[in-house]
Amino acid sequence: MQDYKAPQRDTLFVTQELLDYQAHYQTLGFDEVAEDLVTAIFSEAAKFAENSLAPINASGDEEGCKWDDGVVTTPAGFKEAYQQYVEGGWTGMAQPEEFGGQALPYSLASSIAEWFSGANHSWAMYPGLSQGCMSTLLAHGSEEQQQRFLPKLIEGTWTGTMCLTEAHCGSDLGMLKCRAEPNDDGSYSLTGTKIFISAGEHDLSDNIVHIVLARLPDAPQGTKGISLFVVPKFNVSEAGEIQDRNAVHCGSIEHKMGIKASATCVINFDGAKGYLIGEPNRGLNCMFTFMNKARIGTGVEGLAASEAAFQGALRYAKDRTQFRSLSGVKKPDSPADPIIVHPDVRRMLLTQKAFAEGNRALSCYCMQQVDVTLYSQDEAARQTADAKLALLTPIVKAFLTETAQETTSYGMQVYGGHGYIKEWGMEQLARDTRICTMYEGTTGIQAIDLLARKVLGSKGELLNVFVQEVRDFTEQLRGQPQFSAWTNALNSHLDEWQQLTQDIGKSAAGNPEELGAAAVDYLMYSGYVTVAYFWLKMAVKAQQALDNGATESDFYNAKLQTCGFYFDRILTRTRSLVSAIQSGSDNLMGMSESMFAPE
Amino acid sequence: MQDYKAPQRDTLFVTQELLDYQAHYQTLGFDEVAEDLVTAIFSEAAKFAENSLAPINASGDEEGCKWDDGVVTTPAGFKEAYQQYVEGGWTGMAQPEEFGGQALPYSLASSIAEWFSGANHSWAMYPGLSQGCMSTLLAHGSEEQQQRFLPKLIEGTWTGTMCLTEAHCGSDLGMLKCRAEPNDDGSYSLTGTKIFISAGEHDLSDNIVHIVLARLPDAPQGTKGISLFVVPKFNVSEAGEIQDRNAVHCGSIEHKMGIKASATCVINFDGAKGYLIGEPNRGLNCMFTFMNKARIGTGVEGLAASEAAFQGALRYAKDRTQFRSLSGVKKPDSPADPIIVHPDVRRMLLTQKAFAEGNRALSCYCMQQVDVTLYSQDEAARQTADAKLALLTPIVKAFLTETAQETTSYGMQVYGGHGYIKEWGMEQLARDTRICTMYEGTTGIQAIDLLARKVLGSKGELLNVFVQEVRDFTEQLRGQPQFSAWTNALNSHLDEWQQLTQDIGKSAAGNPEELGAAAVDYLMYSGYVTVAYFWLKMAVKAQQALDNGATESDFYNAKLQTCGFYFDRILTRTRSLVSAIQSGSDNLMGMSESMFAPE
Repeated sequence: MQDYKAPQRDTLFVTQELLDYQAHYQTLGFDEVAEDLVTAIFSEAAKFAENSLAPINASGDEEGCKWDDGVVTTPAGFKEAYQQYVEGGWTGMAQPEEFGGQALPYSLASSIAEWFSGANHSWAMYPGLSQGCMSTLLAHGSEEQQQRFLPKLIEGTWTGTMCLTEAHCGSDLGMLKCRAEPNDDGSYSLTGTKIFISAGEHDLSDNIVHIVLARLPDAPQGTKGISLFVVPKFNVSEAGEIQDRNAVHCGSIEHKMGIKASATCVINFDGAKGYLIGEPNRGLNCMFTFMNKARIGTGVEGLAASEAAFQGALRYAKDRTQFRSLSGVKKPDSPADPIIVHPDVRRMLLTQKAFAEGNRALSCYCMQQVDVTLYSQDEAARQTADAKLALLTPIVKAFLTETAQETTSYGMQVYGGHGYIKEWGMEQLARDTRICTMYEGTTGIQAIDLLARKVLGSKGELLNVFVQEVRDFTEQLRGQPQFSAWTNALNSHLDEWQQLTQDIGKSAAGNPEELGAAAVDYLMYSGYVTVAYFWLKMAVKAQQALDNGATESDFYNAKLQTCGFYFDRILTRTRSLVSAIQSGSDNLMGMSESMFAPE
Repeated sequence: MQDYKAPQRDTLFVTQELLDYQAHYQTLGFDEVAEDLVTAIFSEAAKFAENSLAPINASGDEEGCKWDDGVVTTPAGFKEAYQQYVEGGWTGMAQPEEFGGQALPYSLASSIAEWFSGANHSWAMYPGLSQGCMSTLLAHGSEEQQQRFLPKLIEGTWTGTMCLTEAHCGSDLGMLKCRAEPNDDGSYSLTGTKIFISAGEHDLSDNIVHIVLARLPDAPQGTKGISLFVVPKFNVSEAGEIQDRNAVHCGSIEHKMGIKASATCVINFDGAKGYLIGEPNRGLNCMFTFMNKARIGTGVEGLAASEAAFQGALRYAKDRTQFRSLSGVKKPDSPADPIIVHPDVRRMLLTQKAFAEGNRALSCYCMQQVDVTLYSQDEAARQTADAKLALLTPIVKAFLTETAQETTSYGMQVYGGHGYIKEWGMEQLARDTRICTMYEGTTGIQAIDLLARKVLGSKGELLNVFVQEVRDFTEQLRGQPQFSAWTNALNSHLDEWQQLTQDIGKSAAGNPEELGAAAVDYLMYSGYVTVAYFWLKMAVKAQQALDNGATESDFYNAKLQTCGFYFDRILTRTRSLVSAIQSGSDNLMGMSESMFAPE
């Protein structure tokens, strides 16, 4: 979107006022991360998003990536923007100093990553994938591997990828076939084809470091026989210098609905030299470290699209005049009123705003929890943060991306027919963000992860930890009548959430199909309730600011209004979800396969 | 979609078994339209859709329309397919014999129009727009105008358009500026620019007949000063022969999210010669004749996309293997089970099936009512049909297109990441059908039309006419225990629908914003209940067929199962809609314009 504005004010509200990142940073020992450093970084990040990334978003979509005999060329301006990003030091912002990073908190880097994605989803995927590669090497690579690969990755002159998917296995990685044969020198020869590899080949960096899932010759079948390897495009000396080309090549790129400027590659490994990361056959476990952050990151891509769609729709709704207000002329000097006067346009705008801001609060909360797991010295605090992340990660991934489908669709709908035309940028947002409910684990996969693995797998304990936090908060609001309607609604949802969980657990004990039948509706229910908690928190914080005489009364009053809208018109969607969950699995499983298509 | 199959069996079920089109045709005097003629026509239409239109759908999207100095070229194969369509006599199927048509019923032509759109949405728009032009000339043109234009239009050698929208006015036609100055010879000179003109310029036909809204010099402001004109691309002699080029030119075509093979044109009228249709300043009234059919037609485009998305998703769900069933291995000879075993995949497939088939029943019902308004000699029957169409047209337009957004999104989601890739055709369906909630009046416009103009404008009478039909039906089911759960659910929704209507009417009397605040949720509520009625009717019909020993037990049992799914998991969405409606307008209107964007 050409006119994207980084939501600095709202991100500051969430991180500084709502979640008190400053105190949090102090606790974790980031003494140098003072508020003025944060605002300075925000300001620079906003400029980069608005002035460097947004202007090449539509042109990047139009031009797309080009493949020619294994060489991938990104659209005009992508390379220059990446160079600027590297020069700005953004690639190593949250990476360790020993490898050249700036050792700033993960949450700080992640909260502004939203803006890069909001300005240009495709472009932001290149550095995004690099982060995944770096995290994996940092968490599981040997010291030698770290020394060999990390400095250039952190510097940004090299980029990275994550190579998981194969043609016959996406969600079900247990079926993967890519093979790794040991060489005499301790390295491995990798052979196989990976598909859907984002940033798998491009012209932004001097080398590309692939993290690859493959099987050793003696590996057990299924997920317990998968190992992790690092496989560079160009071989690298122990000193970290680029050598000859490795047998890794891009066979083609996909033609997609959106994120056309992000190269989605078929990568062929033809006896490519790679190095084992971590223990043999434990690759999937290593992968989960990366996956949690990647899933939050994907959720944030959805959030970014919601914000951008809201901005675009709001601009048009204030500008476009059509019909008079139902309650009388609002703009007598114009032949019609701006369409923002119409209740249904407001319904769409408020839905976008409620999701953009509510989802931002949830995702920034999760980033704060990630900080704790990464940096805290307090074992108990780390465990609690881990528990909360285990519960919330699938919710963030799925809920923020599912709601982005709605918000970007409204972005078009507010524009009417004009929303369908490329020049306004609204349709690109919808196309780009459509991938987010599918990659990094579909919504269905997240839902099973949440319900079966996390909630029921912990016998409800993971749910209880988070619910207790919410109950503690609503308890504090007892005796504050201005919040009682929302507090009561939230409390009754907490009761219902736990009851639903118990009921599903019981019915699933007798019939495992009940899990799959309830999972997505349960996840969406969980998302609506979780974001209601953050809306209530924001409303309370806004009321406090107003009570303390804050000058930005529009900003804070909007929080209270939007909270009211959320509780009235969004949280109430749980009514239908409960009905669907309680209807059980028979209405799904009673259909024989032949009945689906009798012709 | 390459593998599109026209849903002949289901369309026969709906038209012949459910709605008894045969008896209906007899009543209306179409004695020659016997069942074997219908099945013969269905068979030919299916072949044309499957073999001629589907194969050029993806290529048409890829190639798009080309504009060069006012000349528009359609993608490869479009012209040949159109020629075949003309030679098949499809263009004049439901047009009067006196102008060369076949005088078959509207409903027969319309029920198969779904298949053409399902096979190739873009292509189907060219003949679709012609139908609008023909209807308008037939209903409102002078005998001389009909003689001059209709034979070639009905023959198909000429095509037509509807030119309404201008840059500053889409929904709000009262603001349109295009001017018509009278000439001495009784014709008019039209000057102005129209946008978003589908089929406005192309290479399929020898001439293009534009139906244009414009203002006479002395016209009153607003909607009461709009007149209707016929303006051909090439001037036409009274004998109907093509003469010189008229001053009508295509300034450009739009670059859109989808329907890329449908030319969406800017049309410049530079003193173009046109002829007044009907009375001066009564153009919008004439337009409404066309609009109702066009709105049903747009709803059918949504239905067509739902059907195509269901077919594609079902095919993949049976073929793609990933993970084992939660209840144990289903396909032991494969490394994983087909994903159709997973409850959540079934939830998506059944949602698609429930909407495709339920929405088809509703739209075919409406087509039957249109037949009555067009052909019946019985004044009372015509009035009843008119009343039902007045209520159901905005529902068909909006509900069938809104649900198509969900079904086509599920089409992609079932494919996972593969759904995002062009080669599978799923993403094209989603892009193509996205326009349907916006053109021919947005969902918001339909909702106000339904709630304010139709339901409350008739003091509830239009709603009561239809509700009575449903009550009469559920009354017949009294004492049939196998239907009692569904009948009770439907009856309580009828009560609730009428109560909601009364409540909104009361609150809107005090505050007109309540109308706009409730409208879209009210429309969706109405859609869910209306389609529930048709699902119950289909279930009853299916049970009768089974009781009578029908051999297609899978087909009929699927109707019963899908009806159960619909009542359990789709109709229950009304719970959240009721909450939203009852929450009133304050949560929308309480937000000042400045609060929306405080930055």
